Amino acid sequence: MLPRCLSIAELGCASGPNAFIVVSEIINIVEKLCREMNHKSLEYNVLMNDLPGNDFNNIFKSIRSFKEKLSNEMESQIGPCYFYGVPASFYGRIFPNQTLHFVHSSSSLHWLSKVPEGVENNKGNIYMSNTSPLNVLKAYYEQFQKDFSLFLKCRAEELVEGGFMVLTLVGRRSEHRSSKECCYFWELMAKALNDMVLEGIIKEEEIDTFNIPYYNPSPSEVNLEVLNEGSFTINRLEVFEVNWNAYDNWNALEYESAKSESFNDSGYNVAQCMRAIAEPMLVNHFGKAIIEEVFSRYQAILNDCMSKEETKFINVTISLTRKSSLRCC
Amino acid sequence: MLPRCLSIAELGCASGPNAFIVVSEIINIVEKLCREMNHKSLEYNVLMNDLPGNDFNNIFKSIRSFKEKLSNEMESQIGPCYFYGVPASFYGRIFPNQTLHFVHSSSSLHWLSKVPEGVENNKGNIYMSNTSPLNVLKAYYEQFQKDFSLFLKCRAEELVEGGFMVLTLVGRRSEHRSSKECCYFWELMAKALNDMVLEGIIKEEEIDTFNIPYYNPSPSEVNLEVLNEGSFTINRLEVFEVNWNAYDNWNALEYESAKSESFNDSGYNVAQCMRAIAEPMLVNHFGKAIIEEVFSRYQAILNDCMSKEETKFINVTISLTRKSSLRCC
Repeated sequence: MLPRCLSIAELGCASGPNAFIVVSEIINIVEKLCREMNHKSLEYNVLMNDLPGNDFNNIFKSIRSFKEKLSNEMESQIGPCYFYGVPASFYGRIFPNQTLHFVHSSSSLHWLSKVPEGVENNKGNIYMSNTSPLNVLKAYYEQFQKDFSLFLKCRAEELVEGGFMVLTLVGRRSEHRSSKECCYFWELMAKALNDMVLEGIIKEEEIDTFNIPYYNPSPSEVNLEVLNEGSFTINRLEVFEVNWNAYDNWNALEYESAKSESFNDSGYNVAQCMRAIAEPMLVNHFGKAIIEEVFSRYQAILNDCMSKEETKFINVTISLTRKSSLRCC
Repeated sequence: MLPRCLSIAELGCASGPNAFIVVSEIINIVEKLCREMNHKSLEYNVLMNDLPGNDFNNIFKSIRSFKEKLSNEMESQIGPCYFYGVPASFYGRIFPNQTLHFVHSSSSLHWLSKVPEGVENNKGNIYMSNTSPLNVLKAYYEQFQKDFSLFLKCRAEELVEGGFMVLTLVGRRSEHRSSKECCYFWELMAKALNDMVLEGIIKEEEIDTFNIPYYNPSPSEVNLEVLNEGSFTINRLEVFEVNWNAYDNWNALEYESAKSESFNDSGYNVAQCMRAIAEPMLVNHFGKAIIEEVFSRYQAILNDCMSKEETKFINVTISLTRKSSLRCC
């Protein structure tokens, strides 16, 4: 049973060149399926969501080339695609009841809706770390539970029965919340900031009052929230690793070519990546003046540590199906 | 029969503070109706459309204040509103089949999809004028017919049966296509440009190859296209006037206050308004260097002519209902 118009939502789409990758994949698969079934092409609603401050103008400029690429890949006309920018927080309702068929979100859901309350005693840290008091770890986890379960509830209302959702977030394997595998890159940033405190460039209380609204759940924590919320069946729950330095994932040939373009400074790559993520928050709290210095120190610290040990992000991916309401009763 | 979710499209919304005026009016009326009928509030899809180059980021920033204003006006909670930016030309399909309930467009549909073909002999003019050859007037009209009828056909496919559409465009009363009431403000701009040709600042062939993709239809021309296209019933077709200088429409009190803010330079106001509209096209054709000079001369010409005669825009507004397909057969 194919719908007349398939609505695909990309949540936390940002504004970069990879915003359309998954949407494109989905439309490809559905178009092939239509041809196999001798069914006429569907219409597609492509709903690109992010916070209202996101640069939607930039995404909108790339729609034409996205459409051309998709048509070329399919080697024939595909069904009409309608594009929408949806500026709103996904920790709340952003679509009407039962109107979505597929929801995708990557690298967004580890962001909490806000800094957890009651983390005032997380001195010298900017995220959970192995020196964080227990109440801090608990506060972070509880904020994740609230946010993720609200997210599931909202999407359950927006998805049609039988609708799909695939979520990827940066998480951890370990059951320890302050495990190095998820906290290390923030700890190293805290080190850069603390070094600047020692040199009198930043005030100690400035670090003590700064905490990142972020949480890296374990697969079992993700699993538990889905079960508790109750609207979704879990199809698959997987964990995979990505090297901090994305170029380390490349094969030798690609790497040789990248090296010649001087992209092979590991610390630089990771620092730039983290800067894209963290700069607005740091500027907001510490002011603009110290930013160059922070990331220059951070890069040096990263280079040192990445030369000595293997450093990886842990990604958790979950594939879900919206249960039928009838079956729930 | 109220739908569960009402979809309202604002076509050619631009990015200014008046983008939400009509949407807000519609939601207000529907909410009041729901209360009178003891019906629960609807959900609302608010679909803001303009070309992909429009500044959607700016509209998205004002959504929060729009929502707050609407809630305050209603003095109670209104139904959930979902906002979308829709970057595409309305001279083509931009929404799935039969998904819209209300379409509104103001001050957009007098823009053609392109400069008409075959207007090479419109020497010394930048739009239709009383010195334009007959084939030019015909080419402009035919482009309007093609564009407006395509617009109607696309919207007829997108609107539900019984759906409404209200369109306002700058037009004319007269049946003469080169009537002063619609061509005069472009003629005065052409005068500024031609004066610069005489002084050697602009080349003559530059003006000869520049034509504005714009058409001001008469009520009967609008009427004819609607009848020919055939999907809509006309509820009302009205014409109204707006002074070139918007401040001339104000009452004495408002005017006194505006005067003190030196907004009362008629030529300046109209030149600024036309600059917002025409600058990108002029820059694209003549280059950036001459722009200040063009609008400074234009302002002087406007001031002179507005001191001598009454100058008004003619607006044509049409209210339409999407016919039922069954009744059409």
